[in-house]
Amino acid sequence: MVVAIGKVLRFTGVSEALDALLREVSIQLEGEVVDILDAVGRYSFRDYTSRVDLPPFDRSAVDGVATRFSDVVGASESSPIALKLVGSLDTDSMEIPTLGRSEAVLVSTGAPIPKGADVVIPIEYCVVRGETVLVYRTYPRLANISLKGEDLVAGDLIVRRGTKLRPWHIAALAASGYEEVEVFRKPRIAVVNTGDEIVRGVIPNTTYFIISSLVKEIGGEVSYSTIVPDNVERISEAVSEALQLSDMVVVTGGTSVGSADLTSEAILRLSGAREVFHGIRIKPGRTAGAYVVEGKPVLAVSGLPVAAFVSLNLLLVPILSKLYGSPPEPKPTTTGILTRRLANDVGFRSYYRTIVCRDRNRNLIIPLKLTGSGILSTLIRSNALLEIPEEIEGLEEGSEVVVTLLGPIVECSELPQVLLDIGLPHF
Amino acid sequence: MVVAIGKVLRFTGVSEALDALLREVSIQLEGEVVDILDAVGRYSFRDYTSRVDLPPFDRSAVDGVATRFSDVVGASESSPIALKLVGSLDTDSMEIPTLGRSEAVLVSTGAPIPKGADVVIPIEYCVVRGETVLVYRTYPRLANISLKGEDLVAGDLIVRRGTKLRPWHIAALAASGYEEVEVFRKPRIAVVNTGDEIVRGVIPNTTYFIISSLVKEIGGEVSYSTIVPDNVERISEAVSEALQLSDMVVVTGGTSVGSADLTSEAILRLSGAREVFHGIRIKPGRTAGAYVVEGKPVLAVSGLPVAAFVSLNLLLVPILSKLYGSPPEPKPTTTGILTRRLANDVGFRSYYRTIVCRDRNRNLIIPLKLTGSGILSTLIRSNALLEIPEEIEGLEEGSEVVVTLLGPIVECSELPQVLLDIGLPHF
Repeated sequence: MVVAIGKVLRFTGVSEALDALLREVSIQLEGEVVDILDAVGRYSFRDYTSRVDLPPFDRSAVDGVATRFSDVVGASESSPIALKLVGSLDTDSMEIPTLGRSEAVLVSTGAPIPKGADVVIPIEYCVVRGETVLVYRTYPRLANISLKGEDLVAGDLIVRRGTKLRPWHIAALAASGYEEVEVFRKPRIAVVNTGDEIVRGVIPNTTYFIISSLVKEIGGEVSYSTIVPDNVERISEAVSEALQLSDMVVVTGGTSVGSADLTSEAILRLSGAREVFHGIRIKPGRTAGAYVVEGKPVLAVSGLPVAAFVSLNLLLVPILSKLYGSPPEPKPTTTGILTRRLANDVGFRSYYRTIVCRDRNRNLIIPLKLTGSGILSTLIRSNALLEIPEEIEGLEEGSEVVVTLLGPIVECSELPQVLLDIGLPHF
Repeated sequence: MVVAIGKVLRFTGVSEALDALLREVSIQLEGEVVDILDAVGRYSFRDYTSRVDLPPFDRSAVDGVATRFSDVVGASESSPIALKLVGSLDTDSMEIPTLGRSEAVLVSTGAPIPKGADVVIPIEYCVVRGETVLVYRTYPRLANISLKGEDLVAGDLIVRRGTKLRPWHIAALAASGYEEVEVFRKPRIAVVNTGDEIVRGVIPNTTYFIISSLVKEIGGEVSYSTIVPDNVERISEAVSEALQLSDMVVVTGGTSVGSADLTSEAILRLSGAREVFHGIRIKPGRTAGAYVVEGKPVLAVSGLPVAAFVSLNLLLVPILSKLYGSPPEPKPTTTGILTRRLANDVGFRSYYRTIVCRDRNRNLIIPLKLTGSGILSTLIRSNALLEIPEEIEGLEEGSEVVVTLLGPIVECSELPQVLLDIGLPHF
């Protein structure tokens, strides 16, 4: 082994790097048909429009008395109006009567409205006496009636291509009689882990597990995975094979510029491979690189788990968003008071692992002291990530900051013993 | 059919209702063992502690030269210190040499530190000349060394019972050699849909689809479902059967107090059934009821899809949280400027469907005009829910409010045509 600086990384700005990557990615995901009940959480492959009117007919929004508006004008507590009860309608009634003057029909919530009726008086304002109903209140025309098509009219767009399907989309699709939905098939992501130390089991391959779990969380599937030693040919072969079996490849390890950092060279040996960037202005994860081979992204990330997670998350989310043609789903965030000053290496976007805890009526944001790219416990012990933008020199103690939540907020008073060495501040 | 007011609902306050429900629920979920790679997103059934130290040995955090701190004190650009190179160590090196005075070893990132060495000088500050290395800079003792166990020490808690497993938990479990994890089995939820109109197909059963999709989204499984007519015996039998096949039952429809609203009666006929509440101070969804049968919750919600969704979500999330013994996962939220005044029925917690759109550097929160409990399109067209607490009379136009996001924020300028009738304000 010879330690030597073969190459100095040029760190590309985050936006520039992402723009360049998205320009180069030209893969497309096909659709697949799934049962409507399995479609929640998947991304729709096409636009869907309603095939029905909802409600399918004018119906009552309350239990009450359906009648003509003109027949109950002026009804009040002191001067009720008497109507002739000519029937009743329930939610499943099929024969719809026509009302004559001063006639009324009892309707339950959801029941069709008789022809000629244009108002429903809630039952609380009516007294039924045999064939007669006394009405003690009037309402505006069309009050308490859900009009046919007021929810959806046949032809209304109910799901746009690229929409993440939520329960209401499934319900609207079901209302139109769709039993199956065409969704984007899950992106197939291959993971190639490099490193003599993991081949030989000297250290556990935590990075593989953090990455493959991330792939699942964001809706992809790990289609292939392998571990290869620090050898250019072997890495190159593995990436080549991975590309056959996936839409994109993640290579872990070998991204910095030490002697054994061969990933870049190995990828660039592949026919048609191009470097998009190698080095990106984020911390942790700045040694990440991105390449394309025939439009498929090959993302090279650090072998250290935290750096791998942060950089891969940053790169994968916009790629998936491009594939689906829709913006990324929002993530849970919160605001709080920063408990100590944090410096930033200007020009880099930094991600600090923090603990958010509830202290009376506000949150405290406590940055963890350990920050290493390999320190898995920083993610285990934190419940939020604090991003410091590139142009900021640092964040002052006591300033209000926004964090992305990784888990539930805890009570400051219940912070586990293991965190007490962090030194809770005296705010 | 006779329309008559059989019972007036007493609306219980939300906190009181939830507290009472959680007190009565005494079911417990067992654990099940799953492959570690299938465990992401599931809830751990037990505490897990690390079985290893991470890192497993002192290792270099950089590519560089490992030596004794005392040998490089005072090294600088103008007066470098020469050390004798006695070897090199890579990440998978097994034999660890011991350093004598003024000796050094080349180390790559992740390589073990030789015995006797207590600092690593990054390779950028070294020049290698044959058997000699010139060091141009000094560092504090232990600089650039990741100490054995600095991430995790054997015995450290890595996952607490009830934790939702995220990628870093999976990685830490894998580092300890766990190949399987014990997680809570998914809660089995049965859905009993009532209503002559859905039995006869007069209206589509959208409520079933919105509820079963919600159950899946929050990590449960629909273990049984059926549709029964508005008949006390039939509903009672169906709930009884559903209870045999599930941890909890959701009954839709028949929750208000019209003639066909028989759900409450049907549930209370079951041996051991108790009403926890019937009527809750939320809008939409105020007719919801909760019952327990031998510790199992039976939740009765409106047959109207939006009301069913809002009330069931409100009731189910705390129940699952109690079962897992951990706080609910955070939801994505954002703040913005309310574009028109919203009234609230004081004493009720209201949920308005709104559109959040980005307008220059802030969000506008546009409440939809249609608000009916049955209007599915209010959820399809909105991307956020605005909650108005019980004690608030209303929210003023122009006030800053927090909403829970249901989907990505859109650009105000790109709002689809169908929303233009909402009347975008002139803020």
